[in-house]
Amino acid sequence: MNDSLLESSDRSRSAAPLHHMQLATFSQPLHLELGGQLPSVTVAYETYGRLSAGRDNAVLVCHAISGDSHVARHGDGDDPGWWDIMVGPGKSIDTDRYFVICSNILGGCRGTTGPNRSNPQSGRPYGADFPTITVGDMVEVQRRLIDHLGIETLRVVIGGSLGGHQALTWAVRHPDRVRACITLASSPRLTSQALAFDVVGRNAIVHDPGYRGGQYYDSDGGGGPEVGLALARMLAHITYLSREAMTAKFDPGRLEPRDTPTAFEKKFSVGSYLAYQGHKFVERFDANSYVTLSMAMDLFDLGETAHELHSVLASSRCRWLVISFTSDWLFPPAQSQQIVDALIGANHPVTYCNVEASGGHDSFLLEEKLSIYGGLIHAFNANVDDAGPARTPEKAAARAALGRPTNIFHSHRLDYDVILQLIPAAASVLDLGCGDGVLLSRLRERGHTRLVGIELDEESLLACVEQRLDVVQHDLEQGLSPFADGQFDVVVLSQTLQSIDDTEGIVDEMLRVGNSCIVSFPNFAYHKLREMLYEEGRSPKAGGVYHFEWYNTPNRRFPSISDVEEFCSRKAIKVHQKVYLDSETGQRIADAPNRNADMAIFVLSR
Amino acid sequence: MNDSLLESSDRSRSAAPLHHMQLATFSQPLHLELGGQLPSVTVAYETYGRLSAGRDNAVLVCHAISGDSHVARHGDGDDPGWWDIMVGPGKSIDTDRYFVICSNILGGCRGTTGPNRSNPQSGRPYGADFPTITVGDMVEVQRRLIDHLGIETLRVVIGGSLGGHQALTWAVRHPDRVRACITLASSPRLTSQALAFDVVGRNAIVHDPGYRGGQYYDSDGGGGPEVGLALARMLAHITYLSREAMTAKFDPGRLEPRDTPTAFEKKFSVGSYLAYQGHKFVERFDANSYVTLSMAMDLFDLGETAHELHSVLASSRCRWLVISFTSDWLFPPAQSQQIVDALIGANHPVTYCNVEASGGHDSFLLEEKLSIYGGLIHAFNANVDDAGPARTPEKAAARAALGRPTNIFHSHRLDYDVILQLIPAAASVLDLGCGDGVLLSRLRERGHTRLVGIELDEESLLACVEQRLDVVQHDLEQGLSPFADGQFDVVVLSQTLQSIDDTEGIVDEMLRVGNSCIVSFPNFAYHKLREMLYEEGRSPKAGGVYHFEWYNTPNRRFPSISDVEEFCSRKAIKVHQKVYLDSETGQRIADAPNRNADMAIFVLSR
Repeated sequence: MNDSLLESSDRSRSAAPLHHMQLATFSQPLHLELGGQLPSVTVAYETYGRLSAGRDNAVLVCHAISGDSHVARHGDGDDPGWWDIMVGPGKSIDTDRYFVICSNILGGCRGTTGPNRSNPQSGRPYGADFPTITVGDMVEVQRRLIDHLGIETLRVVIGGSLGGHQALTWAVRHPDRVRACITLASSPRLTSQALAFDVVGRNAIVHDPGYRGGQYYDSDGGGGPEVGLALARMLAHITYLSREAMTAKFDPGRLEPRDTPTAFEKKFSVGSYLAYQGHKFVERFDANSYVTLSMAMDLFDLGETAHELHSVLASSRCRWLVISFTSDWLFPPAQSQQIVDALIGANHPVTYCNVEASGGHDSFLLEEKLSIYGGLIHAFNANVDDAGPARTPEKAAARAALGRPTNIFHSHRLDYDVILQLIPAAASVLDLGCGDGVLLSRLRERGHTRLVGIELDEESLLACVEQRLDVVQHDLEQGLSPFADGQFDVVVLSQTLQSIDDTEGIVDEMLRVGNSCIVSFPNFAYHKLREMLYEEGRSPKAGGVYHFEWYNTPNRRFPSISDVEEFCSRKAIKVHQKVYLDSETGQRIADAPNRNADMAIFVLSR
Repeated sequence: MNDSLLESSDRSRSAAPLHHMQLATFSQPLHLELGGQLPSVTVAYETYGRLSAGRDNAVLVCHAISGDSHVARHGDGDDPGWWDIMVGPGKSIDTDRYFVICSNILGGCRGTTGPNRSNPQSGRPYGADFPTITVGDMVEVQRRLIDHLGIETLRVVIGGSLGGHQALTWAVRHPDRVRACITLASSPRLTSQALAFDVVGRNAIVHDPGYRGGQYYDSDGGGGPEVGLALARMLAHITYLSREAMTAKFDPGRLEPRDTPTAFEKKFSVGSYLAYQGHKFVERFDANSYVTLSMAMDLFDLGETAHELHSVLASSRCRWLVISFTSDWLFPPAQSQQIVDALIGANHPVTYCNVEASGGHDSFLLEEKLSIYGGLIHAFNANVDDAGPARTPEKAAARAALGRPTNIFHSHRLDYDVILQLIPAAASVLDLGCGDGVLLSRLRERGHTRLVGIELDEESLLACVEQRLDVVQHDLEQGLSPFADGQFDVVVLSQTLQSIDDTEGIVDEMLRVGNSCIVSFPNFAYHKLREMLYEEGRSPKAGGVYHFEWYNTPNRRFPSISDVEEFCSRKAIKVHQKVYLDSETGQRIADAPNRNADMAIFVLSR
């Protein structure tokens, strides 16, 4: 190994991290997916924490295009890693509990076999002779490392961006060796827009005269395609940030650039920033690696159609946590949703959150919403064990006690008792608008195993994951398209019908997805409400979901029991059971329910 | 003039357009805004149609960064121009009616003085010695041309993108010489994100060894910074398209590139497209011009804050039409809205539409939504005359006859008669949710001059513009922040209160903006509705705005007259007048209105 080469490729960092870097060399040839082979492979990696006696606490962290094995600091005197906010003692990926492994990926330039390493056959760096590799090849090298470390099954594989592509590949290539998979800001494949930016970046590099066909390592002073690599990095940097974030950072004082020593344009503050980022990158990264890794990312493709993606992901057998960020336009949330949809279609356990964050694609590296996405990862990690939910009931209880005024439909849950009675034993259940997961938790206590919640609120999602519930962030106004016909025994819509705009749409969708559907709703013809309008001439107001004023009620629809009955009749919906309640007394109502009950629960089917 | 140079700079086109190109040379020095001067200026321009005897039908079209004077074909055998869909006989910019002028901008490379033209002082092309110019300098050259053509006042100045920057500058620099200004996909200044892309493009050009400090014209075969310019163009091209458009175009067959002769990467179909665009651009455009023009665009700045923008735009005296496109992320709609907000704040007549289109920044050059944005321009152009509205009542009537089922609140306009009586003579009026402009048109017939409508629907906006009404596309749920306190004598909210979610917000805002507010709303305590709930136990349904089913009504709030009275009392809102109507009989109701009226009209103030 050429240590001087490795060190010189990262002059911007101290050499400290290298003290913790380990190398493993595998002398058997690596046969590459797209043809050709590498005669041997060296992997640079770092580990954190201790492997348990049962060898069941290993977490593999996969890095993105410009990352390396130094994911976090090893101690106080150490340089921070690229994901210090996530990995460390007591952090979301808790090195007190887990054995964390991070290796420089194949094709990289920080210790693992890549274009800047010596080709054993020629004795010179591979350069542009380094073959075209795939994410699958990267994962194959990681597999060798995991074997080398004596680990049969990874507790968790996690990664953001290109790291997410690796995690996805692990889950589908080695379903028996991955218990949980977490992707952040990732995708089944790049958008054509993201791909186009990479094309421009690569063209900038290989058409820089300093590139010299990729054999610039032995240059006597030329230094390689420094302009091209800097241009590629500047361009990529723009795509990692959101427009909002750039506005906030660079609009004030846009004509006041930092005094960066650079030959690049520095008329504007954003220009001096880009110049700085370009220079910094050229100091620590290899242009051939950039070309190699970005091409591997661009070739990554789990399928163009939902059907193809479903076929591929169906082979996985792990638990899934998928996280996207609202302002990420490079790997837009809709692409993470494609992954989630395919997993839902395959009946795989998946939790999904599209975190409201302003940081763009880089959000998974930022502190902005760490409390949410880090919290989700922390809770999800704790719940991987098959031994059953490592719940944190005290946390969930604390959340519930706090109350969330926006979530008014979860405060009066008399209907839960009835709904629980109406759900057959062991039934699979989809709970639409599951809130903090109270109903689903009670079902699990009763022994149900296939339980899925749908919820919009981030904090509620977190509360669900803390109870080891699978919950998907999804807007019910969009229907239930990810779910297959008859996918659940029971679909529940409790106290939510009246707040949905597309009433017909959601009822149609429930009946499609559930063999049986349970709908609880407030009765607008309850006598107190009728009397208020009739006698006082006032928009009705009462307890429960009718305690709002006419001008601020979150209720959107105001059906009576008779209205819903007629609706079902008109739509040829079978009504199997009806339960009427007086929510003040907690009693069931038998007599004139449309007048005397303030809540109703119907069991429906097509 | 060096004709061979001009021709050689555009080998991709036939020379045909040049037959129509005219040149005007102004020998007095041009003093530049940022210092320095050009000893003389030549302008290349084309004209279409005939200047009227009164010299009052001139339309100046300003082109964007890569455009030129050839905006449209001059006849059947001619090459199409860059805006052939917009300019021509019978088109939105009708060359049968208007005298259309389009000149190559200062700093360009298609005939007008720019870096590729000969510097009279050296006898060689300016190259990188061409000074830094501004959009203001471009407009100054256009002013000389307009003077030269003997035109005192431009009927319309219009432009998209950088062309919009020129139009904005015309309106504020020469307020007495512009009667109407139209901007498409433009902005008060670039976002930091857009600026960053330009920085990368310029760095790619000037760091291409072929750039040779900008003096590449006399190269013996080098050909200039062809790679750098192609890279800049590839990058810019990505920003001109939307992600959706790129997905639709390049996702199918993404690994099936076109066989373009290129040294650039063509692994992906999007790559071969970018390579093609890059090559095509290098053949017809000059790198120094690209650097010069993109810098002028980046330096364009009407103000960072709303206050600054307001100060600048307040000096204009023309009518305004501002158009943005929903999928434009380079010049995002929010930037056009900043222009509109500033104009509203200055009480200037402005119409705004954010056209729902998928084409990205280039939408203003595409046919996708030409019926809307071209229609708006056509109608707006026809209405510039001070002589009064050149209305097309037959068109508006045809639209009204078609009906638009989504716009249900404009079908029963009994309340209009009453509202008209309640509005004082000559009052300025803001109509929130103005629909097709029926109320505003009736007010104008009555002699009111300051009338503004707010509407969401594109077709309704078009109908309003066809009646020469100023109408702004704006979502009432966002409040009325563009409007100043007490800006209007009267603000009208007719039959819309019940469909707005943020009831308190919109009422507060109306009372802030209007000295007096007129609100018409359906009365939910009308006896037929009361009885239906009380006696039948059904969610009430009646005529008018209550003819919907509980599950599909667009009504969001259900107040009674008493509810609104109590609301006003609680909020300390003064109620000056109340009118109660029976919309079936058309009669006013005096007796027990909360029971007997199905509609009420209140006049309110703070």
